[in-house]
Amino acid sequence: MVRLRAHDIAVSLDGFGTGEGQSLESPFGHAGGRLMTWFFPTRTFGAAIGRDGGTTGVDDAFAAQSWNGIGAEIMGRNKFAPLDRPWPDEAWRGWWGDEPPFRTPVIVLTHHPRSDLQVGETTFLFRDTSPEEALAEATELAGGLDVRLGGGPSTVREFLDADLVDHLHLVVAPIVLGRGVRIWDGQEGLEERFAIETTASPSGVVHHVFTRTR
Amino acid sequence: MVRLRAHDIAVSLDGFGTGEGQSLESPFGHAGGRLMTWFFPTRTFGAAIGRDGGTTGVDDAFAAQSWNGIGAEIMGRNKFAPLDRPWPDEAWRGWWGDEPPFRTPVIVLTHHPRSDLQVGETTFLFRDTSPEEALAEATELAGGLDVRLGGGPSTVREFLDADLVDHLHLVVAPIVLGRGVRIWDGQEGLEERFAIETTASPSGVVHHVFTRTR
Repeated sequence: MVRLRAHDIAVSLDGFGTGEGQSLESPFGHAGGRLMTWFFPTRTFGAAIGRDGGTTGVDDAFAAQSWNGIGAEIMGRNKFAPLDRPWPDEAWRGWWGDEPPFRTPVIVLTHHPRSDLQVGETTFLFRDTSPEEALAEATELAGGLDVRLGGGPSTVREFLDADLVDHLHLVVAPIVLGRGVRIWDGQEGLEERFAIETTASPSGVVHHVFTRTR
Repeated sequence: MVRLRAHDIAVSLDGFGTGEGQSLESPFGHAGGRLMTWFFPTRTFGAAIGRDGGTTGVDDAFAAQSWNGIGAEIMGRNKFAPLDRPWPDEAWRGWWGDEPPFRTPVIVLTHHPRSDLQVGETTFLFRDTSPEEALAEATELAGGLDVRLGGGPSTVREFLDADLVDHLHLVVAPIVLGRGVRIWDGQEGLEERFAIETTASPSGVVHHVFTRTR
């Protein structure tokens, strides 16, 4: 049974998954790196950027799971490039350099067409399609492994609205952002569809794991 | 140094401190008792309602602190009676029966005048005043002990806005309410004024303690 899993989805205490004013210079807007301060020191992130060592506690244990048994990813346009308009050209190849860490097919949901893009071992496929169709294609591409839902917050919400999410690892950072993109809008009663396990980390964040129960 | 302390302020994952549709029949609106399911089983709550026994874990440890060293309380009108209009008469004497658990002066912030009310060992004083003035009077009445900020969420917000809160014990319940009264509105950057300690409880809630650092 292929599962759709979201990992490392970080939000502020007031539920913003990214700040206001996203751009290529500030992918999290005014939030800067503050939603991810628990993540950057981990060994898992270190391995992704070629840095030796890193923390190996609960934050790393959760971060590492994101890379287990995944055969494809679905991400929102804003994760690939926060530009709310047609692509100016095809020069932008994502944030991740010559060898993005995905090393699988990645479906990028966008209303603006663009050619498929191979970067290292990762193929970005740009699709203007529904959550259901994106998941069907990603499942096909994943070859029996799970599909990662890569975010950002609007994309997670769309897949929750469509009740397609099996596993959601959500991290609450102890900051109040005040503005940005909310993750909880329209999610009233979410707890009725999920079992929720909660772990506080010494780093100050709280890890919530939502597992679909029906 | 007298401190202003708020305890047991419960909010949903999406930051609602009470649900929509508050009334005398439903003091938390559509949230019902769901924000307080961690609190009701505690020994502390049991003692307040004359029930023997109760849980004695982390939830109770936090609940018990609310009653240590408090000489007066300030609460919002909606905690005393969720009626957004002048008092129809003076028949309503609060939720707490003949012996309310406060046993101190309690300032009730309201725009509608009403006579002082003695119930058992508790005196309710109805005041149409600013947070600063309410705190000054409560401090006077507390006789050297601390002042409790009793909620609800709008009242906590007003006192945070005025930067009068020294200690805030906030409890996040694993539910998404979707509508009601938000606690975080206008609180961007709150973490810059407070140290925050976070503890997850086996009951599923998360206790956050905000301690003012400046």
